[in-house]
Amino acid sequence: MAGKVAARKEALREKLVNLAETQIAHGGLRSVKARDLAKEAGCALGAIYNAFDDLQALFMAVNGRTFQRLGLVVAESVEGVQAGPNERLIIMSEAYLSFASENTNLWRAMFDLEMSTESQVPDWYLAALEDLFSHIAGPVSEIYPQMDAENVVLMTRSLFSSVHGIVLLGLEKRISGVPPEKIKTMISMLLLKIV
Amino acid sequence: MAGKVAARKEALREKLVNLAETQIAHGGLRSVKARDLAKEAGCALGAIYNAFDDLQALFMAVNGRTFQRLGLVVAESVEGVQAGPNERLIIMSEAYLSFASENTNLWRAMFDLEMSTESQVPDWYLAALEDLFSHIAGPVSEIYPQMDAENVVLMTRSLFSSVHGIVLLGLEKRISGVPPEKIKTMISMLLLKIV
Repeated sequence: MAGKVAARKEALREKLVNLAETQIAHGGLRSVKARDLAKEAGCALGAIYNAFDDLQALFMAVNGRTFQRLGLVVAESVEGVQAGPNERLIIMSEAYLSFASENTNLWRAMFDLEMSTESQVPDWYLAALEDLFSHIAGPVSEIYPQMDAENVVLMTRSLFSSVHGIVLLGLEKRISGVPPEKIKTMISMLLLKIV
Repeated sequence: MAGKVAARKEALREKLVNLAETQIAHGGLRSVKARDLAKEAGCALGAIYNAFDDLQALFMAVNGRTFQRLGLVVAESVEGVQAGPNERLIIMSEAYLSFASENTNLWRAMFDLEMSTESQVPDWYLAALEDLFSHIAGPVSEIYPQMDAENVVLMTRSLFSSVHGIVLLGLEKRISGVPPEKIKTMISMLLLKIV
């Protein structure tokens, strides 16, 4: 009996994550309404809060999926590629840019979701972050063979944040002031200059 | 008579910008409600839409002020400073970081305000952006004396976006995964590596 209840709860969780994912992709984080989700899932409003602590937790589940897809896309972009470390960083950054352009609302949701305390960040979220960073850390260590481990960690985050900033402001044309096709150029310029 | 009406409208505009600025600084862009503003300004709700086309236009006016303050802070940080171009970029970036830390909600409002079309971006906004970039372009030209003008423009935007990304994700601890005091280190690491 307990197994059946658990399975039913799991099925509802998955259905809700699917529905929320579709809605975020379509209209962004703020367009998701619990009432609409319940209607589409064919469940009572209260059932959502039985499946997830709150909408925040549901959004985190969607973000977790997006994060995993993003990690895969970035990792696959350099799989088997024979190229120098700067070039591999550029290839990964372009994969990041493509992912952000093609999944803008889901990508933005990963960063727009506010969390009131650090303790709310689930472990699997941090693990996905570490996984993404590990792909960047390789080339960084190659570019700076003398750099100690602690600084490789910082430089990795520094470069990820830099590319994120270029993609973010680049996709919002008004702020970067450059046409979208220049975003790639801006990324390569930066990543070719770091030595 | 016409002059008196115009002066009164201008006075109300300024009052509303002040009130909206205080509210954004306190609770962020989404906390501003037209009804509350009207109450605080002692005017009818409709008077707001006589002074500004819509709330968006009022927010743009607040952002314009923030942008100007930011531009001043960045420019002043290197005034009279005798240092190499990379170091001057670092000093300006640290001024940017301080401004963002001390005025987080107002700073975020500059980037969070959605504009549906590019044509809505006022000229003075673009001028403030150009002014900010001009301070960065100087050191960039010094670092890359062989670079042509078009690429200096792109590299300038690339570096601005990079520092913005580091500050943005850095101030949201959960994503960057580094303690706030490391943000400065991440900025210097990047800016010292570009040659």
